[in-house]
Amino acid sequence: MRAVVAKAGAIEVQELPDPTPGPGQVLVAPSACGICGSDLHLLETQAAMPDLVPAIVLGHEYVGTILDYGPDTERTLPIGSVVTSVPYLDQPDGPQLIGLSPTVTGALADVVVLQESRLVSVPSIPQPEYAALTEPLAVGVHAVGAADLAPGDVALVVGCGPVGLSVIAALKAVGSVEVVAADYSSARRALAEKFGADVVVDPAQTSPYTAWAQLAGPEIPPSPLVETLRRPRTVVFECVGAPGVLNSVMESATPHTRIVVVGVCQQPDTITPAIAIVKELALRFAFAYRPDEFARASRWITDGTVDVGPLVTATRTLADAAGAFADLRNPEDHCKILLTP
Amino acid sequence: MRAVVAKAGAIEVQELPDPTPGPGQVLVAPSACGICGSDLHLLETQAAMPDLVPAIVLGHEYVGTILDYGPDTERTLPIGSVVTSVPYLDQPDGPQLIGLSPTVTGALADVVVLQESRLVSVPSIPQPEYAALTEPLAVGVHAVGAADLAPGDVALVVGCGPVGLSVIAALKAVGSVEVVAADYSSARRALAEKFGADVVVDPAQTSPYTAWAQLAGPEIPPSPLVETLRRPRTVVFECVGAPGVLNSVMESATPHTRIVVVGVCQQPDTITPAIAIVKELALRFAFAYRPDEFARASRWITDGTVDVGPLVTATRTLADAAGAFADLRNPEDHCKILLTP
Repeated sequence: MRAVVAKAGAIEVQELPDPTPGPGQVLVAPSACGICGSDLHLLETQAAMPDLVPAIVLGHEYVGTILDYGPDTERTLPIGSVVTSVPYLDQPDGPQLIGLSPTVTGALADVVVLQESRLVSVPSIPQPEYAALTEPLAVGVHAVGAADLAPGDVALVVGCGPVGLSVIAALKAVGSVEVVAADYSSARRALAEKFGADVVVDPAQTSPYTAWAQLAGPEIPPSPLVETLRRPRTVVFECVGAPGVLNSVMESATPHTRIVVVGVCQQPDTITPAIAIVKELALRFAFAYRPDEFARASRWITDGTVDVGPLVTATRTLADAAGAFADLRNPEDHCKILLTP
Repeated sequence: MRAVVAKAGAIEVQELPDPTPGPGQVLVAPSACGICGSDLHLLETQAAMPDLVPAIVLGHEYVGTILDYGPDTERTLPIGSVVTSVPYLDQPDGPQLIGLSPTVTGALADVVVLQESRLVSVPSIPQPEYAALTEPLAVGVHAVGAADLAPGDVALVVGCGPVGLSVIAALKAVGSVEVVAADYSSARRALAEKFGADVVVDPAQTSPYTAWAQLAGPEIPPSPLVETLRRPRTVVFECVGAPGVLNSVMESATPHTRIVVVGVCQQPDTITPAIAIVKELALRFAFAYRPDEFARASRWITDGTVDVGPLVTATRTLADAAGAFADLRNPEDHCKILLTP
């Protein structure tokens, strides 16, 4: 098979032996697979530590058709069925991430092995390649679930990359929550509007916290001065994941705000705990999604609740993988690039 | 009046004019007042920035008797009534902290002005000076309230100073939660046992996280591998407030743990967000208490639910304030020192 390999920080398309589905596993031909920010992070880590981080066949946002089943499988879905899945494959030493692990090849390839028990069947839809966006949308579904939202809450989404846009999409799908979105990129702000953000702000021009606080209404005073706890309506989704962003959110957020941290900051980061204490902030770090949330993201794409189309700024072929990875580094030009065979 | 003044990082007992109760305020003679860790922090800040931090009459953990009422007061409690209060006094520019503000004098003095609307009446108890510990116990009540506990939860209290011990006391008063307590000081560990901690650990000898994880049972796997969210039973109370402690808790805590941050780290602190994300930790920063929680702490002291006596390692006179402040810096010898007239 052809496979997109991340090696020492560079992208190569290599010819590799096809993987074989083991017990409970299934062989799938990806029809589309997205490139994720975590793929770009992995390349950076490899470039920094080429001897420590081995070569990896990338691809964990995929849709494809069933080619064959391994032994000990239920085979409920016929060969040729269109499927996606939570990207984990059971291995002798436990579940491993598909497309981010050196021992389990990813879906940026002609074939990929998935776990039968994790398959999600994709019904016929006009653009089946959009089912590859189930995975990033599921991240938004999970983050929104972590926020314990109630009708009337006001959400600020900081950073409108694929993660922030998925959060906005999930917030609007849940409904009854006002959404302020902030990004320095005008292209990303335009996408935030398409995904239904009520107010879209360029932080270089105006403070997103001002717009957000105005929508949320009067602040709750510090605890010693309020007899009973009024439920705070303010929630921030930190979807950037760069050093300093979390502390800037803590400094600017109103008291009692819930901050859902979705952006993965790979480096150590400095915060000012005294600010968080006086404001009684709550930080919830959200990772990935549960299988039920993944299934919900799939339903929202296939039943039209969420139109993920605007996320996709380009579709390229596997052969053009290196160019696609290079292009994706410019947020003004690209948001999500799908690769097809 | 005599008053304990923090000035440029030193403690002096000065003769100052008596404060006058304004509208809605009441003049009280403190019968006992505790020294708080935040008083020691203030001295350090003054010593570091003597020109920036003005002199302050300390004392915000108090019990006393009503001497007189100001104008526009209800006067429900007779002169001579024993009272305590949330330490905030209404000023023209808003409520100010009593004993930690340059404009409002504290209760380490012969007299202090309190807000009538915030008074909590203290019934006759064998040791009325213990009502001065209502304030620190209320910090524990509030922190425990921030943890959203359910029966069967397992709490780890990191740091057994007055804050950690108040948290332990509040946890045991709530009941049905197992408590592991950790402190490097043998004296503090002995106090943790007195306050009812089920397991007390010296972190220099064994990991408190091991004992805690054993009590809490099997870990919850990462989100993508669990179909429905089992409620995590693990909660950590960070009661140290020194740089590095929060990150060490994050590194050692099991996935999905709620971390209630009660210790106030005055300096910037470095955390590793990627750890918190992969484990999906929840951080709740807790500050002070609400008035209803302060009233509950008062009831627990006066009805015997909590015996705060072991917290008090010395009672001194106002005249000996400088010595008491110096002694309190040694956690092996002292936990809470009360000053009486």
